[in-house]
Amino acid sequence: MKKLCLFVAFSACAVLASANLQAEQLKQPLAATQAIDLTQKMHEGMPFWPGGVPFTMHRLVDYDQGYQLHKFEVGENTGTHVDAPSHFIKGKQSIDQIPLSNLIVPAVMIDIQDKVTGNPDYELTPSDIEAWEAANGKIPANALVVLNTGWHKRFSDSERYINMDDSKVMHFPGYHPDSAKLLLERDVAGVGIDTLSLDFGGSKTFAFHVAMLKANKYQIENMGNLDALPATGATVVVGVLPVQGGSQAQARIIALLP
Amino acid sequence: MKKLCLFVAFSACAVLASANLQAEQLKQPLAATQAIDLTQKMHEGMPFWPGGVPFTMHRLVDYDQGYQLHKFEVGENTGTHVDAPSHFIKGKQSIDQIPLSNLIVPAVMIDIQDKVTGNPDYELTPSDIEAWEAANGKIPANALVVLNTGWHKRFSDSERYINMDDSKVMHFPGYHPDSAKLLLERDVAGVGIDTLSLDFGGSKTFAFHVAMLKANKYQIENMGNLDALPATGATVVVGVLPVQGGSQAQARIIALLP
Repeated sequence: MKKLCLFVAFSACAVLASANLQAEQLKQPLAATQAIDLTQKMHEGMPFWPGGVPFTMHRLVDYDQGYQLHKFEVGENTGTHVDAPSHFIKGKQSIDQIPLSNLIVPAVMIDIQDKVTGNPDYELTPSDIEAWEAANGKIPANALVVLNTGWHKRFSDSERYINMDDSKVMHFPGYHPDSAKLLLERDVAGVGIDTLSLDFGGSKTFAFHVAMLKANKYQIENMGNLDALPATGATVVVGVLPVQGGSQAQARIIALLP
Repeated sequence: MKKLCLFVAFSACAVLASANLQAEQLKQPLAATQAIDLTQKMHEGMPFWPGGVPFTMHRLVDYDQGYQLHKFEVGENTGTHVDAPSHFIKGKQSIDQIPLSNLIVPAVMIDIQDKVTGNPDYELTPSDIEAWEAANGKIPANALVVLNTGWHKRFSDSERYINMDDSKVMHFPGYHPDSAKLLLERDVAGVGIDTLSLDFGGSKTFAFHVAMLKANKYQIENMGNLDALPATGATVVVGVLPVQGGSQAQARIIALLP
């Protein structure tokens, strides 16, 4: 009888352990009745980081053979994509290692379009974040902070999106490295933007990237449709491709609204 | 005054129309506290359709230059992916045209692992679906029906997953073409499976594919972790890459549980 009881107890533990492995607890419950797509459509000719690998789509089979089939080639950082901590920092989480509980999180949208008008090199400062918090409340822990610079409206025009001057310097807005400290104090899950890079176009050091990735936070670049995202209240589902050992990967980003 | 009123009315309509374009109403509200990943990890050496394009990942930059960067090459049907109606049927929805309200839907899981044991060519029949409904209730409209054949546990072993005999015929389970009619009567949003194809390995006609895609339904192949998915009660978020004009594309598939 003792042996049987031990066996039953052991089996119950095993079932519990395997259930824990498979379903992951969200850090915050979510409720939704609406959805917003924050992903830029992928197509040949879409903007990519200068010197990087563009998206190409090659037709292998067409309807004359009964169906259509394509092959894709793409740099892991082209289009709407997520940077894993391992992108810059050896030994940190690769793109397939980010837990679901960090990919399904409350979204916070900071709109700096008025500051970017007339200054494409604008960088989000800690006082911009504090002003946002004064109006909207403190950024909750484990949120995705999304910076709406208005740049997503240029995505259909690579030249205006990359905005490179004659000295080969790019001009688009970003997060000032000083704002990393405050966002890490808020213990964000990740940060996003609607440009080619979290750091502004003129950055040589990528200091904001380094600070966030070192702290094991992920980053999303080339987000779309940010004017539809409210300042607070949405939950975002970051559907990034789980590429084993990838340092970045393409993602479908969907915001859910109550 | 009349002109001004007309202008105000027109502007209000324009705002309304653009809001409608941006946030999409879900057909069913969702609530979640847990998440399950139904996506197979992507890596070189993972199974792919014989004669197709495998996933390859080429390292372009490594940490000695300060960061890591890769390039991906992949057939649009390799790994966990979605078939758009345009995969087989000219003029139907391409992969970027499937509305969010069809990608965020209730999931229904039908487990046929007991029938597949000893018969890798097993095909789901209408009476299997009716038996499932007798136990679990009618399949709701706009659901994603997911067939758990147990095959997802072979994904790490390409040879056992493709399971090709000496005459080059593949042996894995699927949906019998006769079950398409019943699933279309239930007005499903889409269908999924944990093998290389919705039709069983020996199919020459892909009759189930044709019936579903013709009816403008999408299909998911190579799903993972299906033992974690309950028969009913989950909502699935099909995070497929919105490739313009793509007939299929890779996806991150996440089930949300109340």
